[in-house]
Amino acid sequence: MKINTRSQPSKTSIDRWLLRLIMHHAGNPRVTLRLWTGEEFSTSEGEAVACIEFRQRRAIFELIASSSVGFGECYSKGLIEIHGNFLALANEIVTAHTRQRDRGYLWHKFRSLRASVRANSLIRSRHNVHHHYDLGNDFYKLWLDERLLYTCAYYENTGATLAEAQVAKMDHVCRKLCLEPGQTVIEAGCGWGSLALHMAEHYGVSVKAYNNSREQVTFARQQAVRKGLDDRVEFVLDDYRTIDQHCDVFVSVGMLEHVGLRNFRTLGDIIQRSLKPDGLALIHSIGRSHPRPSDRWITKHIFPGGHIPSLGEMATVFEPHKFSVLDVENLRLHYARTCADWLENFEAVSEQVSEMYSEEFVRTWRLYLAGASAGFQSGTLQLYQVLFAPHGNNEVPWTRRYQYQSRPEKQ
Amino acid sequence: MKINTRSQPSKTSIDRWLLRLIMHHAGNPRVTLRLWTGEEFSTSEGEAVACIEFRQRRAIFELIASSSVGFGECYSKGLIEIHGNFLALANEIVTAHTRQRDRGYLWHKFRSLRASVRANSLIRSRHNVHHHYDLGNDFYKLWLDERLLYTCAYYENTGATLAEAQVAKMDHVCRKLCLEPGQTVIEAGCGWGSLALHMAEHYGVSVKAYNNSREQVTFARQQAVRKGLDDRVEFVLDDYRTIDQHCDVFVSVGMLEHVGLRNFRTLGDIIQRSLKPDGLALIHSIGRSHPRPSDRWITKHIFPGGHIPSLGEMATVFEPHKFSVLDVENLRLHYARTCADWLENFEAVSEQVSEMYSEEFVRTWRLYLAGASAGFQSGTLQLYQVLFAPHGNNEVPWTRRYQYQSRPEKQ
Repeated sequence: MKINTRSQPSKTSIDRWLLRLIMHHAGNPRVTLRLWTGEEFSTSEGEAVACIEFRQRRAIFELIASSSVGFGECYSKGLIEIHGNFLALANEIVTAHTRQRDRGYLWHKFRSLRASVRANSLIRSRHNVHHHYDLGNDFYKLWLDERLLYTCAYYENTGATLAEAQVAKMDHVCRKLCLEPGQTVIEAGCGWGSLALHMAEHYGVSVKAYNNSREQVTFARQQAVRKGLDDRVEFVLDDYRTIDQHCDVFVSVGMLEHVGLRNFRTLGDIIQRSLKPDGLALIHSIGRSHPRPSDRWITKHIFPGGHIPSLGEMATVFEPHKFSVLDVENLRLHYARTCADWLENFEAVSEQVSEMYSEEFVRTWRLYLAGASAGFQSGTLQLYQVLFAPHGNNEVPWTRRYQYQSRPEKQ
Repeated sequence: MKINTRSQPSKTSIDRWLLRLIMHHAGNPRVTLRLWTGEEFSTSEGEAVACIEFRQRRAIFELIASSSVGFGECYSKGLIEIHGNFLALANEIVTAHTRQRDRGYLWHKFRSLRASVRANSLIRSRHNVHHHYDLGNDFYKLWLDERLLYTCAYYENTGATLAEAQVAKMDHVCRKLCLEPGQTVIEAGCGWGSLALHMAEHYGVSVKAYNNSREQVTFARQQAVRKGLDDRVEFVLDDYRTIDQHCDVFVSVGMLEHVGLRNFRTLGDIIQRSLKPDGLALIHSIGRSHPRPSDRWITKHIFPGGHIPSLGEMATVFEPHKFSVLDVENLRLHYARTCADWLENFEAVSEQVSEMYSEEFVRTWRLYLAGASAGFQSGTLQLYQVLFAPHGNNEVPWTRRYQYQSRPEKQ
């Protein structure tokens, strides 16, 4: 990407002052700042983890006008360049920012509620899903694991690979749900279908899996046929709000963060009417440690329509129907590592991606993956797996020891 | 207790009609109803689990005026008598009641909030604690386990005794908190001190434990001296709001349900200012699957000032300081069994208790223990153990497998 760096004025004292101000508000991360003139400086005493180059004055004003959107868009367009370890820089920026004095709890709660007023209709949901998930299976195949799992992996030990950790995640979910051969499962938001197929193949259940993304469902159906599981796994190209069967087990991995806060209660209603009284359910979702609206750059460029909930906000799914929350596990550090693994894979194929889309697309996705990893590493983002049961269901595991027993043999 | 059952009129058609109405609103539990005349009838087709005898007409009116308070007080005074298995009856009544169509979520949420307006001041808290916990150590020694643990036990296997399950509970808590020798622990609400002593004895930590109850603290201090642990365990006779040290670990077992909703945020503030940035904390509390105010008979006769929170309400402790909730475990069925074990012990010494206090006291406590067990069994009550860490603490366990490894040797 060619940027003319010579046409700018060289008198930069006001620019440096503005950048110092911005850095102060960002918690003074340990970075070197480089201007279009080549001048370098830092606002932190620690050793810099990387260098941020402002290739045009405009980038400074964009940052002032809208910090996260400004930074993201300038980086995507090449007005800002990063030199050094990208992920380390993302971690440093996010961590420094979270050290900053923050506005009060009620302020964030209010903003979070306000941001959720815009409900996702069936049509808007389809559009939102299309925006992200219908980028093309070929794109995701380049850098996800071979089973195309696009949610937090579970690294049972620190030496596990991404592929192993994704299988371990599926087994962890299946074990929590105490799956038994012959049971019926509804999955809301099934991605490319790997969890549904894994459940049927290794736990002997029948699955009806819902997804709004045509590209993903087409792929999932092909996989079901290829594996000879299409008699037990049905992929439905439709919104979760059309679910109308009964089931022994309800599972949703990585969908809640997309449905929007206004629809949490609707999701709870759907689970209540579909789950049998002695059933079990699990929701796996990105979360927060406190309510706040989604990052504006993320909702503009990556995930429109989403809301990342705090546990208190997630209660809106469970409490109106008195679901008994049995078990919540937070896997945020696993997601930091998952995103870091995705980023590494992504970097290895970035030239291919650039040819398929554009260099700007590559830069946007690099920033998204690194930013997500940094968010989980710093604690700005959490990952909750919530296991719950209908009110009064006493057919629940007595302790959680069973979750740490070995994987069952193939049915 | 002598009640004159002969001075009542024998024309009872209106009484039977009123009782049918009451039973209808209570979900028609499978019980036999017996009037002061000896007449028996039932409003349910199933086989009755026990018989409720109304020994005076007045009891019917008290039930109409105030269902839970009326029933409780009439039973305590002997206006109502139970024939048959008391615990089975409690389970039947609570389960039938929870099957009933219920008012909406927002209605309960509003009532729950309204009930919480009355804050517990330092003086009122001391009074509330005195009301229940200063009944006399001799009383509790009669029917609790030998270590005087008065919170939910953890039955690792179904054959475990109450005493074993209480030790297992302490180890479960200690394991979750990853205690290491030399660490400092603050315990808020320490009962008779068994957990504090167990932590120091078996995990090598130093504990500062707070409690408002003079009787309990006196006992706990004696135990510390007897076990030679008084150099490492300090029992402070004061409110949790006076905590002013730093610690590696903060733990509170069975206190949150007594502090009142208005003080949840204060408790969070105290944990935030005392817990080191790389620390861990655990709150173990009775909870609900949805917000609702406490039972009026319970707040009047057993636990004044308390509020049993839903998980969403508990978020008020964690979210303002962005604590990262790592792990929530629900042990409600363990508490149902704990209360049943307590009730069994209590029945075995009920004559002694009657001599120490009165027959009315025995009946009140029988109803409380049976009702609590039935509440946990039916799902009206939950038991949450919440493990959490300060925002951004990455020194947290990688998976939860460690919780299911064997108990460490004595330090």
